[in-house]
Amino acid sequence: MLPRGIQNVDLSNIPVARAAYDGAMSAEPINPPPRLLMGPGPINADPRVLRAMSAQLVGQYDPAMTAYMNETMELYRGVFRTQNEATLLVDGTSRAGIEAALISLLEPGDVVLVPIFGRFGHLLREIAERAQADVRVIEREWGTVFTPSEIEAAIIEHKPKLLAVVHGDTSTTVAQPLDELGELCRKHGVLLYTDATASLGGNTFETDQWGIDVVTAGLQKCLGGPSGSAPITLSAAAVDVVNSRKSVEAGIRAEGDAVSAHPVRSNYFDLGQILDYWGPRRLNHHTEATSMLYGARECARLLVEEGLPNAVERHRLHGAAMVEGLRALGFEIFGDQSVRMNNVVGVYIPDGIDGDAGRATMLEDFGIEIGTSFGPLHGKVWRVGVMGYNTRRDAVLTTLAALENVLSRGGVTVTSGAGVGAAVDFYG
Amino acid sequence: MLPRGIQNVDLSNIPVARAAYDGAMSAEPINPPPRLLMGPGPINADPRVLRAMSAQLVGQYDPAMTAYMNETMELYRGVFRTQNEATLLVDGTSRAGIEAALISLLEPGDVVLVPIFGRFGHLLREIAERAQADVRVIEREWGTVFTPSEIEAAIIEHKPKLLAVVHGDTSTTVAQPLDELGELCRKHGVLLYTDATASLGGNTFETDQWGIDVVTAGLQKCLGGPSGSAPITLSAAAVDVVNSRKSVEAGIRAEGDAVSAHPVRSNYFDLGQILDYWGPRRLNHHTEATSMLYGARECARLLVEEGLPNAVERHRLHGAAMVEGLRALGFEIFGDQSVRMNNVVGVYIPDGIDGDAGRATMLEDFGIEIGTSFGPLHGKVWRVGVMGYNTRRDAVLTTLAALENVLSRGGVTVTSGAGVGAAVDFYG
Repeated sequence: MLPRGIQNVDLSNIPVARAAYDGAMSAEPINPPPRLLMGPGPINADPRVLRAMSAQLVGQYDPAMTAYMNETMELYRGVFRTQNEATLLVDGTSRAGIEAALISLLEPGDVVLVPIFGRFGHLLREIAERAQADVRVIEREWGTVFTPSEIEAAIIEHKPKLLAVVHGDTSTTVAQPLDELGELCRKHGVLLYTDATASLGGNTFETDQWGIDVVTAGLQKCLGGPSGSAPITLSAAAVDVVNSRKSVEAGIRAEGDAVSAHPVRSNYFDLGQILDYWGPRRLNHHTEATSMLYGARECARLLVEEGLPNAVERHRLHGAAMVEGLRALGFEIFGDQSVRMNNVVGVYIPDGIDGDAGRATMLEDFGIEIGTSFGPLHGKVWRVGVMGYNTRRDAVLTTLAALENVLSRGGVTVTSGAGVGAAVDFYG
Repeated sequence: MLPRGIQNVDLSNIPVARAAYDGAMSAEPINPPPRLLMGPGPINADPRVLRAMSAQLVGQYDPAMTAYMNETMELYRGVFRTQNEATLLVDGTSRAGIEAALISLLEPGDVVLVPIFGRFGHLLREIAERAQADVRVIEREWGTVFTPSEIEAAIIEHKPKLLAVVHGDTSTTVAQPLDELGELCRKHGVLLYTDATASLGGNTFETDQWGIDVVTAGLQKCLGGPSGSAPITLSAAAVDVVNSRKSVEAGIRAEGDAVSAHPVRSNYFDLGQILDYWGPRRLNHHTEATSMLYGARECARLLVEEGLPNAVERHRLHGAAMVEGLRALGFEIFGDQSVRMNNVVGVYIPDGIDGDAGRATMLEDFGIEIGTSFGPLHGKVWRVGVMGYNTRRDAVLTTLAALENVLSRGGVTVTSGAGVGAAVDFYG
């Protein structure tokens, strides 16, 4: 029997009938279809994280809540591998953390250097431009990274206050090596910020050892949680910058409290105020997103229990098994493999296969999501993620089996069982 | 036997020992103490909301996800009582919604009028100042509200682009009547924004009928969810303002896409970009906070199922019962009762009772949280909330019984059962 052909299904928009607002709408309870999310993130949340998030709320100054906040700070020190006191959560998605960092560190006119090697470098540039910083960029072809000497040359040329660089950029699957940049930055008196959303937990990341001043992340990649909370850590030097711009909010200001002449251009992202909320003064700012904090705390517990080096090794192992299987299916791997993140693999879509249609078949017939690509890679590259809760042998093998079927139904010649077999052999 | 005396317990900080980051920290699983949250919010989440949030994730462009997003838009049209197409969620706490609204509507130098009658008016002022708007304020004693003619006089004097006013301010328990302001604003060519975080779902709120251009809210008050998602609705006129400033993000910009000369000073809060993510183009912006969306959707389902007028009546009934009980316990009620929100009551703390110690006893001995106050009311007024999931007869009566005990242990003369009895009589 011939397999059913691959159909092109629009994944983006399902129209929902408009109803008058007087009660006609009756949406069903949340009951999502089972999916194995093997794209570049978000991925499936660890069930332990979802269980933590289902706990009932407590008040925002309840002793239980402030204890949870303090424990969350300590746990994320473990995840970030830092002794930074200022280690906490920003209440929003990973780009909320990025914006909080950049808008709190940069004043209008400040020079910031952004090395761009993928989509999220463009995002750093855009956020810094909106903060009215003087943004200087250097660019690299997608799939490659910068050498430290290229970055040092740009630092010498532009004399930035801040170097803002993405660690792992899911859009290209590669990670900029950071281990020499902290020393470079200190040598030239530059602050160093990095976005580790895609890499943290699945790749070696050493905040203190590498000398990084500010790091932000998100839960929806290697941390195994849902999007919506942004862990952040700041060095003492970064805290000094942030606090130099702090004003205590007018509605709760007391005699002698700080009022800055050059405040952060955002209240929600003013890290000085957020630090006062997480710190011993407990000054009221936003109402902490309690359920997201429960989830973020559990993400960190999972990683700290396992040990960060073990979590990195888990991602390396299963990511490498996926690569072996993909190669055995005949896929050409995208990007400089010497700097590929453990948790995302890019593959060129084979001739004769429509990228969106292949992804639709993966989703419809196997319940498996793999990723499309942005910018110069759009339509040419699929991205396959192996991260967080889905860093498992069964997830890798199931994805390879489904991909083999999509290739063969699309007319690509493949040996039956080649992908799964290569991965099984690799696991040994 | 004499009751145990009231002790002053610091509710704010529980020290947690610092551990080295190499695995020494082992926090326990999330297991919060049972609390009945009868303060000004956050309050207990409806268990249906927590169950919805415990559902597994799907990809951000999964047909199930985009359908959930569309359904959430439609459900919040029902909650806001509007036909506005632009009805969606901002991923952050309620003040994220406020900042998204103000920073997207206001350009540097734009005149905005902020009537201040409590803490959250000060917050609107602060956020608008940080957006470098030309902020004009009028102020009223806490516990009172403005007349429409006072506001019209200020509009005539200041000729603002935007009138930004809080609806219900939990800091004072009262709500600014808005039903005449839309017409006033149209007459003078002014946009109208209101923060309905504290009032929505528990008090009559008619976005379209009242002619309000932009409304923002949060889940943690009458909507019965956790903090962390900010529903927002924008009129066509507001969408025009927002879209006139839109730039498509550089990393995903296509030929012919908009690039603004005066972009919003934030990427995360750029409502033009966020609308493109929620709209038919589905342009990638942040990764939607899926679990929070599940929760926000369920909050709206609860209210739309009940019917908004019924939900408001529920809040009116149980709020009034609480007032009857508090009066029978001898409490003097704070603020202009003709404009009090249904869902929060302020009471003067009786002579001889230490406010913080009384609250600590409520929490320690009864597991019940009531609220302190900010600014001029600090130390003088307790705030008791009756909202969302806790808008229940048993929650009202239990709180009254516990408060009677705190008063009598503090030396205040009360008749046994007076508070509960008055509330029971009121329920009839």
